[in-house]
Amino acid sequence: MNVGVVGASGYSGELLVKLLLGHPRVKLTTVTSRSQVGKALAQVIPSLRGLDRGLTFTDSDPAAIAGRELDVVFLALPHGAAADFAKVLVPAGKRVIDLSADFRIADLATYERYYGKHHAPELLSQARFVLPEITPPAWKNEVKLVAAPGCYPTSVLVPLVPLLKAGVVSREHIVVNSLSGVSGAGRKVDEMYLYVERAESAKAYGLVKHRHLAEIEEQLALHTGGSAVIQFNPHLAPMRRGIATTITVPAATGATLDGVYAAWREAYGASSFVQILPTGETPDTAYVVGTNRVDMSAVYDPRTRNFVITSAEDNLFKGASGQAVQIMNLWLGFPETTGLV
Amino acid sequence: MNVGVVGASGYSGELLVKLLLGHPRVKLTTVTSRSQVGKALAQVIPSLRGLDRGLTFTDSDPAAIAGRELDVVFLALPHGAAADFAKVLVPAGKRVIDLSADFRIADLATYERYYGKHHAPELLSQARFVLPEITPPAWKNEVKLVAAPGCYPTSVLVPLVPLLKAGVVSREHIVVNSLSGVSGAGRKVDEMYLYVERAESAKAYGLVKHRHLAEIEEQLALHTGGSAVIQFNPHLAPMRRGIATTITVPAATGATLDGVYAAWREAYGASSFVQILPTGETPDTAYVVGTNRVDMSAVYDPRTRNFVITSAEDNLFKGASGQAVQIMNLWLGFPETTGLV
Amino acid sequence: MNVGVVGASGYSGELLVKLLLGHPRVKLTTVTSRSQVGKALAQVIPSLRGLDRGLTFTDSDPAAIAGRELDVVFLALPHGAAADFAKVLVPAGKRVIDLSADFRIADLATYERYYGKHHAPELLSQARFVLPEITPPAWKNEVKLVAAPGCYPTSVLVPLVPLLKAGVVSREHIVVNSLSGVSGAGRKVDEMYLYVERAESAKAYGLVKHRHLAEIEEQLALHTGGSAVIQFNPHLAPMRRGIATTITVPAATGATLDGVYAAWREAYGASSFVQILPTGETPDTAYVVGTNRVDMSAVYDPRTRNFVITSAEDNLFKGASGQAVQIMNLWLGFPETTGLV
Amino acid sequence: MNVGVVGASGYSGELLVKLLLGHPRVKLTTVTSRSQVGKALAQVIPSLRGLDRGLTFTDSDPAAIAGRELDVVFLALPHGAAADFAKVLVPAGKRVIDLSADFRIADLATYERYYGKHHAPELLSQARFVLPEITPPAWKNEVKLVAAPGCYPTSVLVPLVPLLKAGVVSREHIVVNSLSGVSGAGRKVDEMYLYVERAESAKAYGLVKHRHLAEIEEQLALHTGGSAVIQFNPHLAPMRRGIATTITVPAATGATLDGVYAAWREAYGASSFVQILPTGETPDTAYVVGTNRVDMSAVYDPRTRNFVITSAEDNLFKGASGQAVQIMNLWLGFPETTGLV
Repeated sequence: MNVGVVGASGYSGELLVKLLLGHPRVKLTTVTSRSQVGKALAQVIPSLRGLDRGLTFTDSDPAAIAGRELDVVFLALPHGAAADFAKVLVPAGKRVIDLSADFRIADLATYERYYGKHHAPELLSQARFVLPEITPPAWKNEVKLVAAPGCYPTSVLVPLVPLLKAGVVSREHIVVNSLSGVSGAGRKVDEMYLYVERAESAKAYGLVKHRHLAEIEEQLALHTGGSAVIQFNPHLAPMRRGIATTITVPAATGATLDGVYAAWREAYGASSFVQILPTGETPDTAYVVGTNRVDMSAVYDPRTRNFVITSAEDNLFKGASGQAVQIMNLWLGFPETTGLV
Repeated sequence: MNVGVVGASGYSGELLVKLLLGHPRVKLTTVTSRSQVGKALAQVIPSLRGLDRGLTFTDSDPAAIAGRELDVVFLALPHGAAADFAKVLVPAGKRVIDLSADFRIADLATYERYYGKHHAPELLSQARFVLPEITPPAWKNEVKLVAAPGCYPTSVLVPLVPLLKAGVVSREHIVVNSLSGVSGAGRKVDEMYLYVERAESAKAYGLVKHRHLAEIEEQLALHTGGSAVIQFNPHLAPMRRGIATTITVPAATGATLDGVYAAWREAYGASSFVQILPTGETPDTAYVVGTNRVDMSAVYDPRTRNFVITSAEDNLFKGASGQAVQIMNLWLGFPETTGLV
Repeated sequence: MNVGVVGASGYSGELLVKLLLGHPRVKLTTVTSRSQVGKALAQVIPSLRGLDRGLTFTDSDPAAIAGRELDVVFLALPHGAAADFAKVLVPAGKRVIDLSADFRIADLATYERYYGKHHAPELLSQARFVLPEITPPAWKNEVKLVAAPGCYPTSVLVPLVPLLKAGVVSREHIVVNSLSGVSGAGRKVDEMYLYVERAESAKAYGLVKHRHLAEIEEQLALHTGGSAVIQFNPHLAPMRRGIATTITVPAATGATLDGVYAAWREAYGASSFVQILPTGETPDTAYVVGTNRVDMSAVYDPRTRNFVITSAEDNLFKGASGQAVQIMNLWLGFPETTGLV
Repeated sequence: MNVGVVGASGYSGELLVKLLLGHPRVKLTTVTSRSQVGKALAQVIPSLRGLDRGLTFTDSDPAAIAGRELDVVFLALPHGAAADFAKVLVPAGKRVIDLSADFRIADLATYERYYGKHHAPELLSQARFVLPEITPPAWKNEVKLVAAPGCYPTSVLVPLVPLLKAGVVSREHIVVNSLSGVSGAGRKVDEMYLYVERAESAKAYGLVKHRHLAEIEEQLALHTGGSAVIQFNPHLAPMRRGIATTITVPAATGATLDGVYAAWREAYGASSFVQILPTGETPDTAYVVGTNRVDMSAVYDPRTRNFVITSAEDNLFKGASGQAVQIMNLWLGFPETTGLV
C-alpha cells in the first residue's frame, strides 16, 4: 500500500511522516509541501536524519497527486485548502484522510458559521468525522473521505460521550477547561508564539467562540441521543505538546461514580488507546506525550454534586497524526495499533 | 519601624525578605530559620548577594523573637507552626502578619476539618483574614493578628466578590479552574516537583478537597450576603510562578456584561493593584509575575448564558508576600503601594 | 532631568522603560517607536499596567526628539539606525547612550568588517565604549556619546580584563563558551525563535564569526596592555534571560588561583555590581536575572594548568539596559546604584 | 532470547524497559527494583500504561536473577551496586551490559581515584568499555561483561577519536564544554533538581574533577595512539534531555577542515547512528532527543587556528539506554539498528 502526505511541513504533518515512515504495512511514497519543493525530508525535518529513505518534497499539486499510485492520501493542510485537494482526490478514487476541519462538521451552515465559505460542500455526504473509539465501525465501508478529529474534541468526546449516552451526567452546566501545549497553534510564526513570550506564561484564549466547539457539540448530539451545550475554555500552557482537559458536569439524579466507571468500562474495556485511571489519580500530559492514548479519570464531589472528569492526550499524536494513522489502520483492515505502539 | 520574618527560607519567605530589604519605610532587622541559623542571608538567597546588609539568620525561637524590638513580625511558616509562634508573639504585643492558613478561617470547625487540630484557637477572635481589596478597612484598628490570603483564594475572590455582591451572577454552578506555577507547592523536595517530572507536564490535582476552598467559601459568605458552593479545580503548569484562574458562572437573570464591568469599576476603580481588562483580552501570568497586581477580564457567552471570568496574579507576590507587605503598609499607615511598585 | 528612550518596543527598550519609570532622579518624558505610535505604554508593555503615568509612544523622528527638552536620550535601536539618530541628537547637544553596536568599536575598519558601512563615522571620536567597571572614569567629562557594551562582552570582559592586566593568565588559547537565554536574539519573529523550536533545545550558533568578538578583542587590547585572540563559542539555551560564560585560559607561568582572586579583589573590591564567589562555587544565571550584577568565580585545574573562570549575568539587565542606566547614573553624577537595586 | 533489567526505576532504566518491550528480537521477562517490588511496570512508569504485558517488578536479588533464564542482563544501578550484581551474574554465565561506571575504566587505580573502592576488580579483565562506533568489533567474542559508555564521553569520543587518530588536531589545549539536560543527574530527589530551581537557570558544575574525564582520557589514549589531556566543563541547562558538546581544539600543523571531514567520513561513512552535518550547520539537541544518533559538525577559525567541533545526542538514549541496546544487538548478532529506529 502506498501512501502520501500533502502539506508535510507543519507539526502534525511532520509527525505523520515519521509515523508512516515507521509503519510496517504501508510505504510512504509522496510527501508534498509548496514551500519545500525539492528538499530532502531530513533537511526540513532534521530529526529524520538518516531515516528519510531518500524521499524529497514534491509540489502540492492536486492533479499530480491524483495521478500517482496512492492508496491513501493524508491532508495536513489549513481548512479551505484541504477541501480544494479533496475535491480532486476523492473523485479520482483516492481514500482521503483529512486532518483539517473541512469535513469534520456534517452541517454546512454550522461549518460556515465558524469557518466561512466551504470549498467543497458537495463532498460532505461522502465524508465522515471518525473518532474510532466513538464512531460506529460501519464508516469503513460507507465513506470515501474521513475527517480526523480535532485535538481538543478528542480529549472531550472520549470521556464525555459514554457518560451522556448512559445518562449518568447532566446535559446542562457542562464546563470544559483545557490546557494545550504551544504546538496546538501549529508552526505559526507570530510574536505571540515566540519562546520569550510563551515560556513562564499561562493564559486563557479563544473564550466563547473557539472553533472546536462546533464539532464537539455536533458529535455529542449525534452519539448521545440529545444535545448538550458546552462552556469551552481553552488555555495555553508553557509546554510543547499535550492537552489536559478538565470537565465539570453535574451528576444526573441518582448517578454514582461507579456508574461513570461502568459506562467507561463498557465503552472502552477493549480499547487499545483509552486508559481508565482510578478515581483520585489524575492524568498527566507527560505520560501520554508520544503515545496515541487518552488517559482519563473521574471524581465525585458530594458538596457540589458534580463529577470532575480529567483527561490527557498528546495533541499532535492522539489529537492529530496518530489518530489519523489509527483511522488508516482500521480503514485498510490492519490491526488498529499497527505502527502506533 | 523594625520588622522581622520568621521562617525565611521558603519561596514566600525569600520574596518577603527581598521586598522588606527594599522597603523605604521599614527596617528588616530579624530573619529566622531553624535550618539556616548563622548563615548570611545572601548565602541562602543568592539573588541577594551584595544586598543583604550583613544580616544573618537567627534561630526561630518564639520567646527570643518576642523579646526583640519589632513592630511587625511576618510568619512564613507551615500551618500549625505559625500558630505556635503567634500565641507567643501576639500576647507580647507584636503585630503579626501570618502567611499560613492558621488564621484565615474564622470558623474553628471548618479549620479543623481541613487542617486538623488548631494550635491557638484562643487567638481566632483577635485575628482577621485581610484581602485589602475586599476586607472593610476597619480591620486596621480592630485586630492584632492578620492572616494574609492564600494564592488561589486571592485570584478567585478579587473578581468574584463584587459580582456576587452586585447580584449579577448566580450563586450556583460556579466552576473555578486554576493553573498554578510549581512554586505554589513551596520548596518541597519531593520527586513530584523535580524538574524532569514537571517540565512539559500539565495535570489537575487536589480535586474536590483542596484546602483553599475553605477560605474561599467562608469569605464569599462573609462579604456577599449569602453562601456559594464552588467547584474548584487546581492544576499544575510547567512554569515557576503565576496563577491563571478561569471562573465560569451563570449570569443572573437580566444581568449583562456591562453590569459585570460596572460592579468591578465600582469596587476597584481606585485600586492600585487591580487591573480591569476589556472583554476579549485575557490576562496573562507573564504580565503580572513580579507585580502585586491582579489582572482580570470577563466575557459573556450567549449560548450558555455564562460569564467566563479570567484573572492572573503572581502566586508568590500578590498571592503571598507582596500582599503581606501591602497589608503591613495599610496597618502602619503608609501609602498602600510603598515598596511594591 | 528628563530622559527619553528611542525604539522602546524591543526587549531591552522595554526593560529600559521600566527602570527609568522607577528611577528616583530622572523623569521619563519621551518614549518612541515607529510601530507603536499613539499607543499607551502599558498597551505595548502590559507588565506596566497601572504604572505608565499616561505616557504614549511618539514617532521615532530624530529632529523632533532633538527639539525636546531631554538631558539624556537612550537609543534602543538596531545598529545603523542608531547612528542615524545619533548624528542628529549629538550635534543638538543631547547626551546619548546607545545600546546598539554602532559606537562600541573605535576602529572604523573593524566595525565595517563586522557590521557593514557605518552611518556616522564622524561621531566616533566623540564616542566611547563604557563598561563602568573597566573604563577609566575620565570618560564622564570627555564624551558626548556613550556606547553601552554588548551582553556577551560584559560577561567576558569583567572577569578577564583584570587577569590579563595582572599577567596571571596567558594571552593565548583563551576559549570562551557562553550560553544565552533566547531574549538575546531580541523580539525577532522568526521560526527559529518559536516556543516549540527552542524549548528543550540547546545548540551552538554563530561560531567563528560572532559580531561581539570585535568589541571583546578591541577592549582587551585597550585595557590590558596587549592583544589577545579569543575563541568565542555562543550557545542558545532554553531560558528567557541570562548568560552563563565559561572561560578556559592557561595560567601564566607561576600564577596561582590566589593571584586570580587578588587581581579581582583589587579591581572590584569596591564594586557594587560584581560579586566574586569562592572557588568551587559556580555562578547561576537564576541568581542574577533581574539584577545588574556579574557573579563570577574561578578554579584551577592542575592537570591542564588552566584556570576555568565562570560568570553569570542577566543579558537584558547588566548586559544591556541596567548597564545603560548605570552609565547614566555615573554621567549625571548620581550614586551608581540609583534605581538599580 | 530473554532479557532482564536490574534497577529499572531510574530514568535510564525506564527508557531501557521501553526499548526492550518494543524490541522485536528479545523478550523482556525480568524487571527488578528494590523499591518497587510487586508493582506493575505501568504503575511505576505510567507512560507504559497498556503496554507492560503484565510484567511486575521483582526484587533486585543477584542470586535469584542468576537463577533465571536470561540471555542478557542490563544493570541500571549506581556504581558499586552494579559490580555487586556483576560478580554474581558473570560467573553464572549471563551476558551483562552495565550502564554504570564500574567497568568503564580498565585501570583499577584510575577507577578508585574517581569512584572509591572497586567492588569486583577481579572482573575487570573480562570486561570491556564498548562504544560501538569506536571499539574494534572483536569485543563481541572476547568479553562477558560490557560497560556501556557514559553520556558525556559518548558526545566527546565519537567526534574526537577519528581526528586524533588521523592526526588532524592537536593533543594539547583541547577544551570541551558540554550542556546537559537535567535528567543527566538521574531521578535524584534533591533541592538542586527541583523544577523551580532549574527552570530558567544555567550554570557550570563539576569543573576540574568530573568523573567522566577518567573514561574520556583512557579511551582517547587507547584508541588514538597517544594521550591527551582534556579540559572538561560540564553545564546544566533547563531542559529534560539532551547533551550539546562543543570542543575547541587547535588544528594540527597543515591540517584543514577537509581533513577533519575526511577523517569523519572514513570512520562513520557506514554508521547508522552518526550524522555528519556540513560546516556552518550546528547540531541541535532537539533533533536528536528520542534517537540513538550523534549529530556533529566542525568549523575552522582562521583567526585562532582552532577547529570548533559541535555534537549533540540524547543523554538517555545514545548516551545510555539506546546505546546499551545497540551493544546488545551487536553482541547477539542482530542488525545494529534493531528496535532503535
